Amino acid sequence: MPLRFDVCRKPMIVVLSGGVGAARFLEGLAAVVAPERIAAVVNTGDDMVMHGLHIAPDLDIVTCTLAGVIDTAQGWGIAGDTDECMQWLGRLGAPTWFKLGDRDLALHIYRTARLRDGATLSRVADEIRHALEVRVTIIPMSDDPAPTHVLTDHGELHFEEYFVRERCQPAVRGVRLHAAGPVRPAPSLLPLIASAEAIIIAPSNPVVSVGPILAIPGVQEAIAAASAPVIAISPIVGGAAIKGPAVPLMRAVGMAPTALGVAEAYADLIDGIVIDTVDAALAPAIEQLGIRPLVTDTIMRGRPEKIALARAALDLAGLSVAATPS
Amino acid sequence: MPLRFDVCRKPMIVVLSGGVGAARFLEGLAAVVAPERIAAVVNTGDDMVMHGLHIAPDLDIVTCTLAGVIDTAQGWGIAGDTDECMQWLGRLGAPTWFKLGDRDLALHIYRTARLRDGATLSRVADEIRHALEVRVTIIPMSDDPAPTHVLTDHGELHFEEYFVRERCQPAVRGVRLHAAGPVRPAPSLLPLIASAEAIIIAPSNPVVSVGPILAIPGVQEAIAAASAPVIAISPIVGGAAIKGPAVPLMRAVGMAPTALGVAEAYADLIDGIVIDTVDAALAPAIEQLGIRPLVTDTIMRGRPEKIALARAALDLAGLSVAATPS
Repeated sequence: MPLRFDVCRKPMIVVLSGGVGAARFLEGLAAVVAPERIAAVVNTGDDMVMHGLHIAPDLDIVTCTLAGVIDTAQGWGIAGDTDECMQWLGRLGAPTWFKLGDRDLALHIYRTARLRDGATLSRVADEIRHALEVRVTIIPMSDDPAPTHVLTDHGELHFEEYFVRERCQPAVRGVRLHAAGPVRPAPSLLPLIASAEAIIIAPSNPVVSVGPILAIPGVQEAIAAASAPVIAISPIVGGAAIKGPAVPLMRAVGMAPTALGVAEAYADLIDGIVIDTVDAALAPAIEQLGIRPLVTDTIMRGRPEKIALARAALDLAGLSVAATPS
Repeated sequence: MPLRFDVCRKPMIVVLSGGVGAARFLEGLAAVVAPERIAAVVNTGDDMVMHGLHIAPDLDIVTCTLAGVIDTAQGWGIAGDTDECMQWLGRLGAPTWFKLGDRDLALHIYRTARLRDGATLSRVADEIRHALEVRVTIIPMSDDPAPTHVLTDHGELHFEEYFVRERCQPAVRGVRLHAAGPVRPAPSLLPLIASAEAIIIAPSNPVVSVGPILAIPGVQEAIAAASAPVIAISPIVGGAAIKGPAVPLMRAVGMAPTALGVAEAYADLIDGIVIDTVDAALAPAIEQLGIRPLVTDTIMRGRPEKIALARAALDLAGLSVAATPS
């Protein structure tokens, strides 16, 4: 077992991260600045125990994307993975609505065994990212269980039940974060924020990806107290989410599902926000909130767009970067 | 989850079983008599927790053999299985000396999750055999952990560490059965023995496959008290084991590694023993023990030999069977 555990000693670019959108943004960022300068704080609200295994969807998406092993078409899962185990689990009568690939399962099995050995989720996330040679620091938002529940007209569902099993069909009435009880920040989270050189809110769902991180006691206070610039990237473009159920979830919690709504949701925390060119008309209203907008193309179709978006975010945060990506 | 759980109501042919040899014998037996009439009592001394998963080698070998999904060349594992998960577990730094196929893992994951839910091993074994449409009743010898340790010149090893990881290389000084503490019989075991129509000790390692079953308090007494005929099939042919490390293990516990040694080991329990034609010269000495020998070909090369051996065992037990296999 690797005994390495990173302690944050120097100011880092801290990225509050959900899954696919954040992972793609982090890929661009790691191409623009040294990966060792980046720390991803990852949502664990989607985590769940399934088949007795601790599944951590966003941690795995971020880690596997940065390791270059992600299934890029899906945005999740490992490239070239197979589903032999899942088919046999189905044969044994186990639920199969949440697909777990054979390679993918190794992460869940390893994580579950290590947690049962007494390792923290922070420790295990660090072991996995080191094993996959990821140079970006990756920490879960918390070592405590912090499930996100979606209140629907079909009852209170775990986020993944709502998102994957029910395919976002039930009407959403509300969202319950940290549904298992009090959630403490991961040990390195508040020190990381306090000493950050920049804090970036990734283009992730503000309700169920960033929301669980910001809902942890002390996190918003730490961000407000930090001297680092705080900027966000809107995951909403032209009133729609790039991916996932942001629109109904934002509506359910009273946020306008627009880039302006995102800016409003983060108004007390951020200094600037990157919004898409199609939302340029919202820039004046964002400025009215005391937030500096940066208007650019935000859709990350490929590596050039990811890099350009990372540059825009760093620019808005006032960090200068070399002209040529590493 | 299936809620079926078999309760033994009628006399059954009870087979004390290890892994590969027992599974092949059971295949033949199930072709000769109705599978519903057979109950395999399976050694769990080889069971271990690996990667946080409950691995039950002999239960899986017996179940998968009878389900027709075994890798027949190896005698264990599922036919056509892949090892994607194992390769990735290795990448994460987990030990990889005990190979677990992707399909195979479904059994371990399912079993572990069910045990954690509070199900007994008996219950889970029954669920799995029903899911795989096995008509033979399969019960673990115990629902308690009952690891077999091998005392070697490299220290005290779990049987699988000795057998698989160390490839039987360390010199054996002794065997420690039930190394985790007292082991109770599975709830249905003693009633099954008491009401058996025949008790057959499969051609399995007498020390580490049958030994752990016979070492459970009450089992030998139940066999002695049962009215059913008790017969064994020697796993030793011409002074060698068909498979596995029976010879050094038998020597280490003071048994002669011959068919006669097997008969001597079981002398207080059995009425008859099936031995191989090459060991015909041992028959008189076996008769001297008050045990009736039956000399025949015992090597189960294919289906006809499995069936012939089953018929021989039933014949020795005094059970008449139809002339044509089902």
